[in-house]
Amino acid sequence: MTDNSSNKMWGGRFAAGPDAIMEAINASIGFDKRMAAQDIAGSRAHAAMLAATGIITDNDAAAIREGLLTILSEIEGGTFEYSTSLEDIHMNVEARLKEVIGEPAGRLHTGRSRNDQVATDFKLWVRDQLDAFEGGLIALIQALLGQAEAGADWVMPGFTHLQTAQPVTWGHHMMAYVEMFGRDLSRVRDARARMNESPLGAAALAGTSFPIDRDMTAQALGFDRPAANSLDAVSDRDFALEFLSTASICAMHLSRFAEELVIWSSAQFRFVTLSDRFSTGSSIMPQKKNPDAAELIRAKVGRIFGANTALMMVMKGLPLAYSKDMQEDKEQVFDAADNLMLALAAMEGMVRDMTGNRTELAAAAGSGFSTATDLADWLVRVLGLPFRDAHHVTGALVGMAEQQGCDLPDLTLAQMQSVHDGISESVFDVLTVENSVNSRMSYGGTAPAQVRAQVARWQELLA
Amino acid sequence: MTDNSSNKMWGGRFAAGPDAIMEAINASIGFDKRMAAQDIAGSRAHAAMLAATGIITDNDAAAIREGLLTILSEIEGGTFEYSTSLEDIHMNVEARLKEVIGEPAGRLHTGRSRNDQVATDFKLWVRDQLDAFEGGLIALIQALLGQAEAGADWVMPGFTHLQTAQPVTWGHHMMAYVEMFGRDLSRVRDARARMNESPLGAAALAGTSFPIDRDMTAQALGFDRPAANSLDAVSDRDFALEFLSTASICAMHLSRFAEELVIWSSAQFRFVTLSDRFSTGSSIMPQKKNPDAAELIRAKVGRIFGANTALMMVMKGLPLAYSKDMQEDKEQVFDAADNLMLALAAMEGMVRDMTGNRTELAAAAGSGFSTATDLADWLVRVLGLPFRDAHHVTGALVGMAEQQGCDLPDLTLAQMQSVHDGISESVFDVLTVENSVNSRMSYGGTAPAQVRAQVARWQELLA
Amino acid sequence: MTDNSSNKMWGGRFAAGPDAIMEAINASIGFDKRMAAQDIAGSRAHAAMLAATGIITDNDAAAIREGLLTILSEIEGGTFEYSTSLEDIHMNVEARLKEVIGEPAGRLHTGRSRNDQVATDFKLWVRDQLDAFEGGLIALIQALLGQAEAGADWVMPGFTHLQTAQPVTWGHHMMAYVEMFGRDLSRVRDARARMNESPLGAAALAGTSFPIDRDMTAQALGFDRPAANSLDAVSDRDFALEFLSTASICAMHLSRFAEELVIWSSAQFRFVTLSDRFSTGSSIMPQKKNPDAAELIRAKVGRIFGANTALMMVMKGLPLAYSKDMQEDKEQVFDAADNLMLALAAMEGMVRDMTGNRTELAAAAGSGFSTATDLADWLVRVLGLPFRDAHHVTGALVGMAEQQGCDLPDLTLAQMQSVHDGISESVFDVLTVENSVNSRMSYGGTAPAQVRAQVARWQELLA
Amino acid sequence: MTDNSSNKMWGGRFAAGPDAIMEAINASIGFDKRMAAQDIAGSRAHAAMLAATGIITDNDAAAIREGLLTILSEIEGGTFEYSTSLEDIHMNVEARLKEVIGEPAGRLHTGRSRNDQVATDFKLWVRDQLDAFEGGLIALIQALLGQAEAGADWVMPGFTHLQTAQPVTWGHHMMAYVEMFGRDLSRVRDARARMNESPLGAAALAGTSFPIDRDMTAQALGFDRPAANSLDAVSDRDFALEFLSTASICAMHLSRFAEELVIWSSAQFRFVTLSDRFSTGSSIMPQKKNPDAAELIRAKVGRIFGANTALMMVMKGLPLAYSKDMQEDKEQVFDAADNLMLALAAMEGMVRDMTGNRTELAAAAGSGFSTATDLADWLVRVLGLPFRDAHHVTGALVGMAEQQGCDLPDLTLAQMQSVHDGISESVFDVLTVENSVNSRMSYGGTAPAQVRAQVARWQELLA
Repeated sequence: MTDNSSNKMWGGRFAAGPDAIMEAINASIGFDKRMAAQDIAGSRAHAAMLAATGIITDNDAAAIREGLLTILSEIEGGTFEYSTSLEDIHMNVEARLKEVIGEPAGRLHTGRSRNDQVATDFKLWVRDQLDAFEGGLIALIQALLGQAEAGADWVMPGFTHLQTAQPVTWGHHMMAYVEMFGRDLSRVRDARARMNESPLGAAALAGTSFPIDRDMTAQALGFDRPAANSLDAVSDRDFALEFLSTASICAMHLSRFAEELVIWSSAQFRFVTLSDRFSTGSSIMPQKKNPDAAELIRAKVGRIFGANTALMMVMKGLPLAYSKDMQEDKEQVFDAADNLMLALAAMEGMVRDMTGNRTELAAAAGSGFSTATDLADWLVRVLGLPFRDAHHVTGALVGMAEQQGCDLPDLTLAQMQSVHDGISESVFDVLTVENSVNSRMSYGGTAPAQVRAQVARWQELLA
Repeated sequence: MTDNSSNKMWGGRFAAGPDAIMEAINASIGFDKRMAAQDIAGSRAHAAMLAATGIITDNDAAAIREGLLTILSEIEGGTFEYSTSLEDIHMNVEARLKEVIGEPAGRLHTGRSRNDQVATDFKLWVRDQLDAFEGGLIALIQALLGQAEAGADWVMPGFTHLQTAQPVTWGHHMMAYVEMFGRDLSRVRDARARMNESPLGAAALAGTSFPIDRDMTAQALGFDRPAANSLDAVSDRDFALEFLSTASICAMHLSRFAEELVIWSSAQFRFVTLSDRFSTGSSIMPQKKNPDAAELIRAKVGRIFGANTALMMVMKGLPLAYSKDMQEDKEQVFDAADNLMLALAAMEGMVRDMTGNRTELAAAAGSGFSTATDLADWLVRVLGLPFRDAHHVTGALVGMAEQQGCDLPDLTLAQMQSVHDGISESVFDVLTVENSVNSRMSYGGTAPAQVRAQVARWQELLA
Repeated sequence: MTDNSSNKMWGGRFAAGPDAIMEAINASIGFDKRMAAQDIAGSRAHAAMLAATGIITDNDAAAIREGLLTILSEIEGGTFEYSTSLEDIHMNVEARLKEVIGEPAGRLHTGRSRNDQVATDFKLWVRDQLDAFEGGLIALIQALLGQAEAGADWVMPGFTHLQTAQPVTWGHHMMAYVEMFGRDLSRVRDARARMNESPLGAAALAGTSFPIDRDMTAQALGFDRPAANSLDAVSDRDFALEFLSTASICAMHLSRFAEELVIWSSAQFRFVTLSDRFSTGSSIMPQKKNPDAAELIRAKVGRIFGANTALMMVMKGLPLAYSKDMQEDKEQVFDAADNLMLALAAMEGMVRDMTGNRTELAAAAGSGFSTATDLADWLVRVLGLPFRDAHHVTGALVGMAEQQGCDLPDLTLAQMQSVHDGISESVFDVLTVENSVNSRMSYGGTAPAQVRAQVARWQELLA
Repeated sequence: MTDNSSNKMWGGRFAAGPDAIMEAINASIGFDKRMAAQDIAGSRAHAAMLAATGIITDNDAAAIREGLLTILSEIEGGTFEYSTSLEDIHMNVEARLKEVIGEPAGRLHTGRSRNDQVATDFKLWVRDQLDAFEGGLIALIQALLGQAEAGADWVMPGFTHLQTAQPVTWGHHMMAYVEMFGRDLSRVRDARARMNESPLGAAALAGTSFPIDRDMTAQALGFDRPAANSLDAVSDRDFALEFLSTASICAMHLSRFAEELVIWSSAQFRFVTLSDRFSTGSSIMPQKKNPDAAELIRAKVGRIFGANTALMMVMKGLPLAYSKDMQEDKEQVFDAADNLMLALAAMEGMVRDMTGNRTELAAAAGSGFSTATDLADWLVRVLGLPFRDAHHVTGALVGMAEQQGCDLPDLTLAQMQSVHDGISESVFDVLTVENSVNSRMSYGGTAPAQVRAQVARWQELLA
């Protein structure tokens, strides 16, 4: 029953034996080196505080802080040599510090531990991502505002079930996404405010007996305050999960817009033309434009929510305080952040570059008896019919038009009156697409004036 | 290759034919009747506004509002007859209203549509759950504060990797969960504030030409403002997703505590005794107490995050504005909310009832050389050794104690000096568990004084 | 900071106190009564075996078996009274058995425990679902074969990126789904074969000292053999997870087809007309047909994979053998199974009822230079150009046609020769859509003859 | 409201502009180069077939096949230069082939397309992983068999709810995992058999008009047959999803065992000693052994099921045939496969190295009245009590023992008879842990003889 070839493949992969396997599963330097700048910033703040509180000498602190700057230069310059046997970024930096400055390096770790150090580094990294997330959202919203302003009065079909329901405006459709990304922005800011507490000084898990000043390091690193419980400080990964769930909802919004762009780019819809920069062609059909960027953006929600799932499952049922399982947190967040920022940037670029095909949009808006609701509303407003009765009359008129192969405005007044004799000439005012959208002046409605008001409100908010 | 029995089973299940299948997949009244109170509140607010703006008469509005109260009584009294052929709660109520008040019922739906109506109902329902979620968190935090206050100075092992690391206090451990549930509370409040915008008046998707007053209905329903884009208002389910992701993180916290309670209840740990009310026994082993409630709470994170996954996947890639896919939102949120509230209540009850076994906790805290870090810190603080050197000396002393089968305080001063001759009598002050925890006075540390300060801070916050 | 109203709501929900909370979280009778028939079948098989092995008397076994049939009648007749205080279906049945037959009821539980009993019941239930799943897949495949046979030679556009790529046939497109659902069928059969081992007799977890005959009960219940390890038998939920992952992949296939049906039903595509039975209309736009069933089917993958996620997370990290967490398994599987079967039935009905719009399909197939690949292949095959060069020439010809606003067959031979002078009259043979699809005779290709061969192969497989 | 720093960070990240963003999101060469060997194998098989069917000359085919071998050497030797502007591995290899052999390179792509090429490459890659997965499972099962054989008669507590339920044997516990990994093995083999169909020759989506021989290429690449529908062949990712779901269930099994190892390694349990190779120490507490490998293995289920979630969500609702979204498939599978293999190898190593602490296991097995069930069974078997009555008597005896602070075998016969006067001296035979486990001789029970029989069965299966 055994299969030699499979065993050979298996054996080959792990021929190096148990020690190599343990190193492979245990070492994190392959990915956590992305937190080098954060690690050094944290250590520099810690050293300054140790001197200020008299725990180490000013000279030692100065040497440590200077040495760390040297190491940062080496890392940024690409000359730093990472060692897998030193496992993680913290030990790599510390070992190098010893080489650079000698004995004082050994005093840096006083009053802290790897547990609070890694929590601090990772929080700083995630906080940077939240800032970048905010920037990306603002840029995308601004691109959408540009489209909305330009096309505030372009008519297009408003869909439910991908069936034409009522005419709306291009600007109104763009502004729907502004609201979505605006909520994302609000979530990002809430998440950033909530997570901005410093774990540094929680030490291994119990705090420390050294007279450290956690407020000082918190302030130096831009935190609002120190975290209030040392056990929680080293075992908390809420900030990573909240980043991932916030990113997931945003990626879902992106997927919806991307889906629309894919459908709108089809030969059957032709609602939008994407720029060459965000499409790919075919060597054989030069006219063909594949909406590759839109499709890839549509897919990113899977990847990002997959990371959310992964970390939720890792954290499920972990006892306090630190368990090694938590080392699985970083790669998920790194990958999700990279892909989110890329998707936001690609969407922003696509939105800036895309061209709404006004003619096709308008043609589609006028077909399918899209002003039937306007007719029904007219019957209620002008003739005083109850809503449900007005629906009934409208249905009869639409049926008549369909049978005659014409559209609603093509029916004669006499034909209309044969269905309900109260109908008068003024009904034709509400049957055009332009009048329809102009009439939807309720707050948040699709009327161009409402759209322009919302554009102005958002421009002011982002000014 | 066909299997008659399986086909028969298949056939039997759907023998009723296509119409029954469509009704089964399409109708929502089976679950959305849970939103009856919200539906009626929304309709009453809408009717009042229609009258105030002159769209319908005061008499009609009064009849509608009175009729809706009658229906609410019928529903609360259990006499209302739901009809599946009327599909959903909205149509069930509207049809009954027609029976109760006659013609004016037909005017209620003026200037709105099922799309904004269902969004409004569901938002009101979720908002109620956020309020209940807040209440449940506060009650649980108060139960934890009670435990923390009572056991602020009980010593127990602090674990990393489920291995004894350093002594901590029972109160400190409880307060770690207070921080977690406190963050959940903060997330709940942010979510509630963000979602509190009224969809009512967005109509089908484009707004309406009736001169409605969306601020008035928003205010009547306790919303902060009307939603600013009608397309977004009917297609947005962010509030449901944010409820689910917030609930998921909270359920993860619950799962961690539940895991600890299961482990602590084992014969090997005996750290805690759960009350009979939250355990089940065995008919055969009367002394056995199974921590059933803790296990079920541990499992709930799966169910709740499963609902989050479900709705994320449903929303992925949906074009605007309303698609029927979105009908899958409610059952997920209903089930998640029910289970979250149940888990919070069960955990609160368990925490209130449970008894920390102070003797076992203290015994475990003192074993395993748990004050080795204190020894190392003493070497740094008193003898001025660099941290890494102090670790080396400590390791040698622990090794010596282990070899002699004794604990650290049992070594003689001479033995200690044989490892490092600077060690003096005062070292013994830091080797007891009580001194260890008392010394961890850094902000957020495990010292009883710190724990009591945090308890007081939280009591004030919740006062 | 406290909110009275939220606390009141909270308090109201759980006013009944700890005992009610524990009953609410602990009792499973609310859902596990769905396994009543399985529970009774298992108990009847167990009783027969206990008698055959001499562990109980034949008289006792006969009384038990008869009494269980009586109870089954009560349950099927709706007269059985379930009691929540008896917690689960097993205790409800056992307690009733005691009422019905008296003392012998107490002998039924000899040599088994609730742990193997619930595992057996649940396995039998899931096995029934796998059979129904198989039946549903076969019915759906047969509906697709009907469509494929009828439209084996209808031409339509084959899409990549939702852009027209090459012409294909309607039958070929249908057969793509037959392959997908055929793989699902294969997975279902593998899963059924793998899970068909009997847990009965594993007892609490260690097996039993009674001389039971596990082969006998396994055979009586249609299992292939008894499970080989008693600890595993009571802690295994692989069969539920494999059901859920198999169902998830199938639901993903359904979501893809549903997405196509939604897009194809749009006014812009008009590729398909769904029957009224699986659409819903609008009271106001009688011509409008919303593809509600397709949208609901599209959504089901979320729900079913959500259940998969839930159970995976529940099982993560559970120590052996039985933990109460596992009680969360049933509701997930019940809900997923119900929704899967409904989605399969609705899709089968929709497929049987739907009408491909042959004219629109053909028109779309011929536009967009869809035979450009055929032209390139002709250049390779007839003129011997390397593939990449042929692509280049084709691109130039497509560009020429686009500039002239005509399609490829409308170019003159002279125009073609101006791009490559080797082109001859016979090239026009490959530029029609019909010739294109007829030429794709490679195995599994879109040529009608290939499609018909595949239809025949599947009809034989399912005969 | 704008934040300059965040915008700067945002801007900095994507300063390179739209073209760089598109390249970043679109290019796959960064990861798909892992399929280089598969790509070359596929192309070599295709070239041989093109010559055999007369589509290209033997000379061209020979040049292509030789050139591809050269490129494979370059890749394996690390001298191949990948170009991001060539996007993917297919174009990188093809472009290099043109450099190496000139004009004939242009003929390789005849009768295929990138769509079937990438599907073929990826399938071959996944098939290799299934083989490695099989090898890893067999190796792990063999390690478990070793432990089971050595400790077939070591007694330990069998837990439910992490509470002692009945004594079991170490070997029995190990064999429970053999059953789980055995089911994984069965799933892997089914998945491999199902996916082993060749997409090559499906071309872009419709098949081809060249007289290719798909059976020949299928056979050359070790496939069982060509895939039967070209649309399906390029749009199918079931094989990746089935790999991921199979890997997820296996990872769940690993997480359960890992959880047990973490708990068993605690100071409170001491059931097992892990080797130094799979633990990490503390510089300060040399006796401390953190079960890092076990914790990391426990976490992997999150990562692997996260990948499953990601790809399920990507595939949800994708219309046929190829969409660029599907490019997101590879990184998920690559990462899941790497981590699964690593987790299997680490677990195998840990199991081989670990030492069950027989003394602690036995002591724990005997405590907690663990033979109460044996007593109850004796009452049924010997005295003929109904099971439920026997439970009642046993409960009374356990209560008596508990009150007296002794264990069951320490009660006198007289004491026992005071509860039930039928109890005789022979009852003491069943009250020892050894007799308890020896008595559980039902098939699959915990008796050492049963365990040894199962070990032998598995050794034969794997021989």
